[in-house]
Amino acid sequence: MSDSKENHLPESSLPVKKGVSVVSEAVCQEVMGRADAFTAVENVFSAMAKNTAYNFPVIREAIGHADALYGFKSGFDRDGMVLGLKSGGYWPGNVQKDLTNHQSTVILFDPDTCQLKSLVGGNYLTAVRTAASSAVSIAHLARKDSKVLGMVGAGHQSTFQLRAAVEQRDFEKIVCWNFHPEQIPNLAAVAEELGLPFESVTREELCAQADVIITITSAFEALIDKDWIKPGTHIACMGTDTIGKQEVDAKLLTVDKVFTDELAQSIMLGEAQHAIAQKLIHQSDIVPIGEVINGTKTGRTSAEDITLFDGTGVGLQDLAVASVAAELAEAKGQVTYFNL
Amino acid sequence: MSDSKENHLPESSLPVKKGVSVVSEAVCQEVMGRADAFTAVENVFSAMAKNTAYNFPVIREAIGHADALYGFKSGFDRDGMVLGLKSGGYWPGNVQKDLTNHQSTVILFDPDTCQLKSLVGGNYLTAVRTAASSAVSIAHLARKDSKVLGMVGAGHQSTFQLRAAVEQRDFEKIVCWNFHPEQIPNLAAVAEELGLPFESVTREELCAQADVIITITSAFEALIDKDWIKPGTHIACMGTDTIGKQEVDAKLLTVDKVFTDELAQSIMLGEAQHAIAQKLIHQSDIVPIGEVINGTKTGRTSAEDITLFDGTGVGLQDLAVASVAAELAEAKGQVTYFNL
Repeated sequence: MSDSKENHLPESSLPVKKGVSVVSEAVCQEVMGRADAFTAVENVFSAMAKNTAYNFPVIREAIGHADALYGFKSGFDRDGMVLGLKSGGYWPGNVQKDLTNHQSTVILFDPDTCQLKSLVGGNYLTAVRTAASSAVSIAHLARKDSKVLGMVGAGHQSTFQLRAAVEQRDFEKIVCWNFHPEQIPNLAAVAEELGLPFESVTREELCAQADVIITITSAFEALIDKDWIKPGTHIACMGTDTIGKQEVDAKLLTVDKVFTDELAQSIMLGEAQHAIAQKLIHQSDIVPIGEVINGTKTGRTSAEDITLFDGTGVGLQDLAVASVAAELAEAKGQVTYFNL
Repeated sequence: MSDSKENHLPESSLPVKKGVSVVSEAVCQEVMGRADAFTAVENVFSAMAKNTAYNFPVIREAIGHADALYGFKSGFDRDGMVLGLKSGGYWPGNVQKDLTNHQSTVILFDPDTCQLKSLVGGNYLTAVRTAASSAVSIAHLARKDSKVLGMVGAGHQSTFQLRAAVEQRDFEKIVCWNFHPEQIPNLAAVAEELGLPFESVTREELCAQADVIITITSAFEALIDKDWIKPGTHIACMGTDTIGKQEVDAKLLTVDKVFTDELAQSIMLGEAQHAIAQKLIHQSDIVPIGEVINGTKTGRTSAEDITLFDGTGVGLQDLAVASVAAELAEAKGQVTYFNL
């Protein structure tokens, strides 16, 4: 239909309240940098530890259509005054339609009135906030003199993790292992762009060389043995976000210090789920990284400590980066508006 | 700011996929009639009983700001191919800002791809779908010769319940009780508009006269005694949607036949919660009304039966009416579009 009424929003909008803002995927990619994402995620981890921000229960449902997993992550940051949810899921058939399998939309509400405030494309932001999470863990937990970064996983998301990680330490080399070796050149190309030597290695060799390891796979069994890890290593486990998934040996959770974004998710569906189930650790052994950021708990205390970060991904991360993206886009005039 | 880029959506839109549709509150009021809402709600109750549509767990959180209750109701109707959520809550300070205390937005996704499909104002639709729910119960459970309708509650929502109810039977009179008598003239005005005699009565007198009773209050204690109810009455309890709320004597749930929209909600946070807690009834005593609609369970079997419908309000009702509203609005060219 070509009726212009259908394709345009009303001409007028009030000077103060312009309506609901729309921040497209394309605009998110344009305005949202890694530094802003890092700060947003670090702030929200801090707020979670202070109990001024909290995640609501996660809804996650196999809908019985298109093999899809659908759900919401939601929460409220009282200091940042950010309220809302990320809705979306995993649609494995999307790739055949030239769409991303993981589809996300962030929906923000005005905490003073509950009126719809902003709609923000969530696909790019999910990648960026997940990368920011391991970057925050490296910034706060990895040895300052870390030189070799080990990437377990070389899929699409790994390129985001790599770019964010190398901004935290003066890495001199990247080593990588991936279940599908044919994907490795994609990550190697990013390393080359970053001017970093890149080597494809075995998992054991990766652990022998790396000072920092990021696991970012969709594995359902341990890829990394505890015995392979050398003293002083920091490991960020970023792939396990579902009951049943697993990237590292459960015994690896008995290393010196284990941290997470959110304790409740870590023990239920994060990398710690297996060590908890096997009674290798107790949930009191896991420290929310916000406590380290806030200085209320210690992080690494020696160059020999092995530290592990269980990054499960929380709704507040999504809300935080989406809120910042909306502000940046608005400031740059790259927002459209509609009224409900 | 007056930059036109900020206030308009892009000029072009693809002929087939026009983007995310926006159906405003005003348009919902224009396109969504009671008959369409009735059909949508009846269909979704039927689908729930066939297990082709299901509600996901409800999220409901006191956010610790503005005395607000915030949350989501969500679900998927596989036959209707409707997926999404209603997000919103209760913001008691809104009334001072000339806003509705109950704020709702319905967000629909394409079940084939999980892409955002429609945003639909949810305030008016929530009122309409709640009214449709008691109307469906009257259509399927009340005596055909019901003449007197008793309204317990005369607030804003009661006017919607009344308008929908009188279309189901040839009512000749409305009797009403409300905790705040000063609100009663609002409902009386609607009865007058409908050409129906209206009488303000005591609760006991209301039960003595009424063939059909609708309770639509925010009460936290029983307003109606079991002994007051005469044989053949149908009672639709529509106000109890939260743990702790109660409109009728728990013993009233031991009447001949008890029905509900969704069993899980009925026993947890609906009117049946108290009778279940007091072990007056078992959950197997409660029949989903969809079973009656589908003919797989019987409804009223005699003119003497007292029937009770526990209407708790489910996400699928919201999705159903919003989906129909979006279709109607699109057909009438009253939809705007944006792209994410």
